[in-house]
Amino acid sequence: MTKKILSGHGSGGKLMNEMIETLIKGTLGPESIQLDDSAVLTIGTETIVFTTDTFTITPLFFPGGDIGTLAVNGTVNDLAVMGAEPLYLSCGVIIEEGLDMEVFETILKSMKAAADHAGVKIVTGDTKVVQKGNADKLFINTSGVGRITGKVQRGPVREGDTILVSGFIGDHGISVMAERNNLTFTKGLQSDCMALNSMIMKITEAYPESIRFMRDPTRGGVASVLNEIVKGQPFSAKLYEHNCPFREEVKGVCEILGIDPLYAANEGKVVMIVNPGDAAGILEKMRETPEGKDAAIIGEITAEYPGKAYLETAIGGERILPLLLDEQLPRIC
Amino acid sequence: MTKKILSGHGSGGKLMNEMIETLIKGTLGPESIQLDDSAVLTIGTETIVFTTDTFTITPLFFPGGDIGTLAVNGTVNDLAVMGAEPLYLSCGVIIEEGLDMEVFETILKSMKAAADHAGVKIVTGDTKVVQKGNADKLFINTSGVGRITGKVQRGPVREGDTILVSGFIGDHGISVMAERNNLTFTKGLQSDCMALNSMIMKITEAYPESIRFMRDPTRGGVASVLNEIVKGQPFSAKLYEHNCPFREEVKGVCEILGIDPLYAANEGKVVMIVNPGDAAGILEKMRETPEGKDAAIIGEITAEYPGKAYLETAIGGERILPLLLDEQLPRIC
Repeated sequence: MTKKILSGHGSGGKLMNEMIETLIKGTLGPESIQLDDSAVLTIGTETIVFTTDTFTITPLFFPGGDIGTLAVNGTVNDLAVMGAEPLYLSCGVIIEEGLDMEVFETILKSMKAAADHAGVKIVTGDTKVVQKGNADKLFINTSGVGRITGKVQRGPVREGDTILVSGFIGDHGISVMAERNNLTFTKGLQSDCMALNSMIMKITEAYPESIRFMRDPTRGGVASVLNEIVKGQPFSAKLYEHNCPFREEVKGVCEILGIDPLYAANEGKVVMIVNPGDAAGILEKMRETPEGKDAAIIGEITAEYPGKAYLETAIGGERILPLLLDEQLPRIC
Repeated sequence: MTKKILSGHGSGGKLMNEMIETLIKGTLGPESIQLDDSAVLTIGTETIVFTTDTFTITPLFFPGGDIGTLAVNGTVNDLAVMGAEPLYLSCGVIIEEGLDMEVFETILKSMKAAADHAGVKIVTGDTKVVQKGNADKLFINTSGVGRITGKVQRGPVREGDTILVSGFIGDHGISVMAERNNLTFTKGLQSDCMALNSMIMKITEAYPESIRFMRDPTRGGVASVLNEIVKGQPFSAKLYEHNCPFREEVKGVCEILGIDPLYAANEGKVVMIVNPGDAAGILEKMRETPEGKDAAIIGEITAEYPGKAYLETAIGGERILPLLLDEQLPRIC
């Protein structure tokens, strides 16, 4: 039987990773996906970062943002976690014929506001319209270019390193799922969608040599990012459940829907792995910013279970956090 | 009644231009679409060009190429016509669940071959999968970064300038339409989809100061590109019909389908407006290359009908080539 592409191939989980590793990198060559989903490039005397992301989220509007804010902040954050100053974005839209012009206008306004807030410029664009039934309302691709003047923030991760997260985990994924499922008791729960470049720059300026790894845990959440880091390595990522900041509303929705918030998407959070001696200082610096005020130390790099991510549960047990095969939350970004 | 987005808003015609000018530039700011659909940017000491294009063509495979070759060559050409050396591409895909893995693999192979041929690298990517009925098989966004070391090829256009085209007009649009309409008498007619950076570089090196304007006439074709150039200007673009290179098969399909080939998409052609004194030399240089062997001088910039493009017909009449309101050939790229 002919092999088909499944929903899980776009999940941020195992199926997607396999397709990227074998089919995409295998065909386009190993340079095709450098360092996560951003590429560090040399142009003349400059070092730039180039990244791309397509947003297909449904619904277009959700508590705390819309596909426009998400498209700008998502790409800004992909540049920022490489240690780059985000500078320029492109905006390519696919519109389903019949979309209200007002809806499109509202989303463009969100993009402009998000770009202004993050200090980036949207400089080039492309518009395609397809017939009804050939897209779902609106898809947005934003690619981004940033400049690195200091260190590329991808030093090697070592045993003993400390794992931080910049705030509450799972807010984006869970608020979108609550919206889709018409759950009403989550009043007030919002996506965390925001730009992190300002906060990250403050930390990299204060601690230029202390960060081993940064990543925004979007699709697949914190657990998937940690799995990527430890994959094939002689160490593991250990999380302390009691230290992980989860909002009560997030825990409530997760119980009802049977979702693990560690796999839920975040759109305004960064996971940092840092030199343990500087962890307290970095945490303090992070908490001084509005984006990082709820930051926490959530784990460490250890020698147990090499290549795996695992959780020390609140009651003292241990649970492996596997790389999921498939999609928990389709079209979350 | 709420205003809806129509197919024509993605046509390369009047509706699209209006939406870009008022809604998109109005909301995102005037810097949002610099110089056609590419942006010339300064990063440190370097001048780069940044562009984006989304491809939604149907069918995915057509005579002479597929959506993958198109996605690479289209973005390479957008960079090349700015006078840039194309360097790096991104690749963001939206896949409809259920697409054959083999189809995706074939298209990735086309992208790799096209990138190798053009001398660019695909360095970063993103993969989204949406449920059946929420996309049409496969959409590809390619954004691109190039470097300008010489002149940005956008000098002012002047009365008396010569208009050249690098080969047969309308091959891409008409071959795709023939394929969609199962026309069989066009055997051998193929899309012109190819990268133009090598040819363009040869010309800009030999004639660094002679080119006033270059553009690849994709959606909307040669007539739409000329309309954009003369819009609001005190001069017009005059084409000589008897000098325009049209293949017999293209003329045949156009008669049957009622299409004007001057509005049909090209994916491997450049329209150049050049200093008249250098036109013969540039034409000769162009014809020395495989990409430009069928190049021709097709018109001139004149003072008649300011702001318009018009055709001197083969029988000596004149016909205005208006900016079309709407879509002649939906989803041609």
